[in-house]
Amino acid sequence: MNRYGSRINEDVYIETKIRYSWKCINEKCVKTDLPATCKSDTNNILNICRLICGPYGAIWPKPTQEIKLSKEIIPIHPDNINFDLKNLIKHNDAYMADKLIKQMSEIFVDDVKLLCSVNCLKILHTELYIKIVINSSETNLTWDTDESYALHVKNNEFKIMAFIQAKTVFGARHGLVTLFQLMTTVSENNANYLVMIKDALIIDKPVYPHRGLLIDTSRHFLHLDTIKRTLDGMGHSKLNVLHWHATDSHSFPLKLPRIPELAKYGAYSPEQIYTVQDITDLISHAKKRGVRIIIEIDSPSHAGNGWQWGESMGLGNLSVCVNKNPWRNYCVQPPCGQLNPINPNVYKVLGLLYKDLVNIFPEGEIFHMGGDEVAISCWNSTQEITDFMKKEGMTRNTEDFLELWAYFHNKALHTLEKILENNTIPVILWSSQLTFPESIAKYLDKKRFIIQTWTESTENTSIELLEQGYKLIISTKDAWYLDHGFYGNTRYYNWATVYNNHIPEVSKGVYGGEVCMWGEYVDDFALDARVWPRAASASERLWSDPITSSSAALYRLLEHRERLIKLGIKAEAIIPEWCYENEGLCE
Amino acid sequence: MNRYGSRINEDVYIETKIRYSWKCINEKCVKTDLPATCKSDTNNILNICRLICGPYGAIWPKPTQEIKLSKEIIPIHPDNINFDLKNLIKHNDAYMADKLIKQMSEIFVDDVKLLCSVNCLKILHTELYIKIVINSSETNLTWDTDESYALHVKNNEFKIMAFIQAKTVFGARHGLVTLFQLMTTVSENNANYLVMIKDALIIDKPVYPHRGLLIDTSRHFLHLDTIKRTLDGMGHSKLNVLHWHATDSHSFPLKLPRIPELAKYGAYSPEQIYTVQDITDLISHAKKRGVRIIIEIDSPSHAGNGWQWGESMGLGNLSVCVNKNPWRNYCVQPPCGQLNPINPNVYKVLGLLYKDLVNIFPEGEIFHMGGDEVAISCWNSTQEITDFMKKEGMTRNTEDFLELWAYFHNKALHTLEKILENNTIPVILWSSQLTFPESIAKYLDKKRFIIQTWTESTENTSIELLEQGYKLIISTKDAWYLDHGFYGNTRYYNWATVYNNHIPEVSKGVYGGEVCMWGEYVDDFALDARVWPRAASASERLWSDPITSSSAALYRLLEHRERLIKLGIKAEAIIPEWCYENEGLCE
Repeated sequence: MNRYGSRINEDVYIETKIRYSWKCINEKCVKTDLPATCKSDTNNILNICRLICGPYGAIWPKPTQEIKLSKEIIPIHPDNINFDLKNLIKHNDAYMADKLIKQMSEIFVDDVKLLCSVNCLKILHTELYIKIVINSSETNLTWDTDESYALHVKNNEFKIMAFIQAKTVFGARHGLVTLFQLMTTVSENNANYLVMIKDALIIDKPVYPHRGLLIDTSRHFLHLDTIKRTLDGMGHSKLNVLHWHATDSHSFPLKLPRIPELAKYGAYSPEQIYTVQDITDLISHAKKRGVRIIIEIDSPSHAGNGWQWGESMGLGNLSVCVNKNPWRNYCVQPPCGQLNPINPNVYKVLGLLYKDLVNIFPEGEIFHMGGDEVAISCWNSTQEITDFMKKEGMTRNTEDFLELWAYFHNKALHTLEKILENNTIPVILWSSQLTFPESIAKYLDKKRFIIQTWTESTENTSIELLEQGYKLIISTKDAWYLDHGFYGNTRYYNWATVYNNHIPEVSKGVYGGEVCMWGEYVDDFALDARVWPRAASASERLWSDPITSSSAALYRLLEHRERLIKLGIKAEAIIPEWCYENEGLCE
Repeated sequence: MNRYGSRINEDVYIETKIRYSWKCINEKCVKTDLPATCKSDTNNILNICRLICGPYGAIWPKPTQEIKLSKEIIPIHPDNINFDLKNLIKHNDAYMADKLIKQMSEIFVDDVKLLCSVNCLKILHTELYIKIVINSSETNLTWDTDESYALHVKNNEFKIMAFIQAKTVFGARHGLVTLFQLMTTVSENNANYLVMIKDALIIDKPVYPHRGLLIDTSRHFLHLDTIKRTLDGMGHSKLNVLHWHATDSHSFPLKLPRIPELAKYGAYSPEQIYTVQDITDLISHAKKRGVRIIIEIDSPSHAGNGWQWGESMGLGNLSVCVNKNPWRNYCVQPPCGQLNPINPNVYKVLGLLYKDLVNIFPEGEIFHMGGDEVAISCWNSTQEITDFMKKEGMTRNTEDFLELWAYFHNKALHTLEKILENNTIPVILWSSQLTFPESIAKYLDKKRFIIQTWTESTENTSIELLEQGYKLIISTKDAWYLDHGFYGNTRYYNWATVYNNHIPEVSKGVYGGEVCMWGEYVDDFALDARVWPRAASASERLWSDPITSSSAALYRLLEHRERLIKLGIKAEAIIPEWCYENEGLCE
């Protein structure tokens, strides 16, 4: 009688260990058929196999120039990481860059600690020695920033040399992120240890200079921790623009020194505000993660709550149709509210607002002025505005309202320009009725207005605007709108749809693109899962613009998701766990 | 020149406090037009307004018999809650019930502490004195359990008397949950205090005895904490069945004493298992929250990984087509795997498995045997099976395969029956090709098989099965499948769609219904947001079966969501914050 046969009658409890093992075969991590009963070889653990298997290992987004990864790993420990940042840059004005790269290095070590988690064991006394060389003292991240880097990892007995060469601190930081992605955690008996690839050479630079994620703090207030955690995920995914849709008709959470009324009337509560200190803190948190923040004050539409105090202060109506009902008659989404383009005080208030923002944000930073979804019906129902138009000899045709709308944007831009002492910095506007390719040139100067298109993938708008010489940022509505799927007739776009969304080339005038996490149906409690790993999917499209499709990226993205989770970001699951463990068998 | 006019030139920073206030007018909480500059009256805080406004205040699900709520509130503190549980029940066998209600009372106090959060201030020394009277010593929750309760709250100077009368501990616990829902938190200057309604009378009982949520620990392993947190949410929403889809073809995480091989071969890793201790712990955690756990061992289909060891132990093939490729030829979803109905050892192993479960679960608890999505193509491609059928004079027509499938379920039931010493307890099966109304009677005895239908709302299957006398549990696929929307051509069903799904009446033979959180695309990190508040939406449909639709429930559900968040459950947002604050203005 076999062992099992006897057990049928005996109810014996036998302790067993389950442990499958994986081998890298033809660039896939293949699971063995049956579990090993004894402790398996470290090299056969799935995440280690993924670290060394295939040309890109577990690196996300994949490098664009050159990559060589050894298949050998070595244990390391966060305590044994040392930096050589001496004489980093030769310039005299290198203080800021020096300071920034030091902060980036500290974040690197903190993240390595998070990766190893609690009970981080020291298996070997391997030293990871990181030397960074940078050529420029530039510390402002712009579309012109050189983000390229070279990372060379060499093992020499108990020392691993990681040499990062870059033009800027931002390139060097990308090098650190890639270095981080050469590591993984081994868990054993409630303890962990880190291993990393012993030898590697990576030369890398992004395809698009603008790789963004939009968050929305007006439909729901987001706590600073949530935004910081999002920035952490962006830094690790090499996304470099947080488009902060800070205000909308729903709420105005920015507490600005020159116009505290905006928050007083517009914030949900005294606690749900961002002070100057908060904003500065976020900008700094972002910069250390290679991210710039572009703030959007949506206007003239999507501006209601926060703007109700004009009349009581003798400034007239700053915004019209505020919270007006039935809302469908005056806006596309409640609550309504649209700035009053004919009230000169509106531009005075905007001037103060811009002045505060210019003071808070780094010199030369770009602003987003919104410009989407103006409801002509609102202005058309406001007697003050229609009287003005009549006086000016305008009709109430659509074209004349578009004229008024364009007047607003040009006057707002001129207001900003004066604050910037006539520095002709461009601003960003959403695509709209005003940016239709056949008429945009009448309204908006292509040298001054960058257009963020949010048209569907089948529409020609982007191409036609590019042909006219407009600079664009692309947010393909039917692929990169992360809020879709949770309301109305919209559909959720999974990570693969996000990944497979191609956008026009840089050479045609595209800065890059953004995935958009609009805030109507998300707040602090579900943001992570709605953003991640889908924003990372977009990051590979924007950094690498691969000719391959999502199917070639799945298992790397899964490892990136595991990494984000280790870093405290609650990314959603994208395939069953069995499929994660059995590469290629669920296709 | 007004204050503002001078500010334009001066850059003055003025500290301001923003605070709106709300009033209950015509059963709606109406926001004042303008913010108060001074500290507002406590009564005008939104969540307090919602607590006392409208016939149901912030109670979720709404009571079905009688409800009277005073509009007056009084501060309380968790330290001043006392229970009178002396001589709770007169019976001699009351020990277990006594113990259980004590545990439920402790949970109540812990939850009140969570509600108040940190820095919980004592404003008044009001005592909340809770007296509970129960008539029965029953501590097993079944479809026959009387869950009714009456809650009477009376204020007398600095004492609030809450008197809960119920037939069973489970009814009394519902009374405690409702009492909890008479409370809310006031936040002020980084501290909080609790207030509760001073006088109330609620008489309540559920419409359906089976109010369930399915979770799936096979597609992704869920940690105990995640399951416990889910049970906490269920308890607070008066859902009373956790349908635990424990195993599937993907993984078998149950480590059972009689058959450790199932987990050894079937668990994702040695850490991703549920031991007997874990399962017992979950059952106990659930019971204290008024929830029973019905475990499902899906069979004969959806059984692959975990069942691979038969041959090596001389027991033949226990499961066929396990992980077979191309999977589309052998199952509806990878990995494939279907129990071998002609191998007698399969029933021996199932017998051991059932024996373990019977030992772990409370006496008389119902089991779910799965029964969905048998792929005839799998059995039809397995020579051992087709040879057997030929020998038995069967053809390879669909009907004969259905016969074989029915043979499996009846034999599996018979196996369970023997373990239960011929106790004729029914089992639950999913609706399938085997349960088509026109032929089900041939295969499955209506006294022994309860059918869980997962058909679409337009299909007649449920009605036709009820007409034949089958007992049902309803999981309307196009409303109550919480996994939909994240893959393929499926759509996400928002809280309103979940709410508005009507199911046939109890009197027709329906025990109730379940929302199903299938696990392919969700794990520990997004489960809360995908389940909540949608599962609560279903709970009101099942507890109250209101004639009103979702629009009458929105603001109460929003308060319930706030409550779940206070309790540590990361429920998703369902409307913009402005709409939450401005009742009725976003419709």
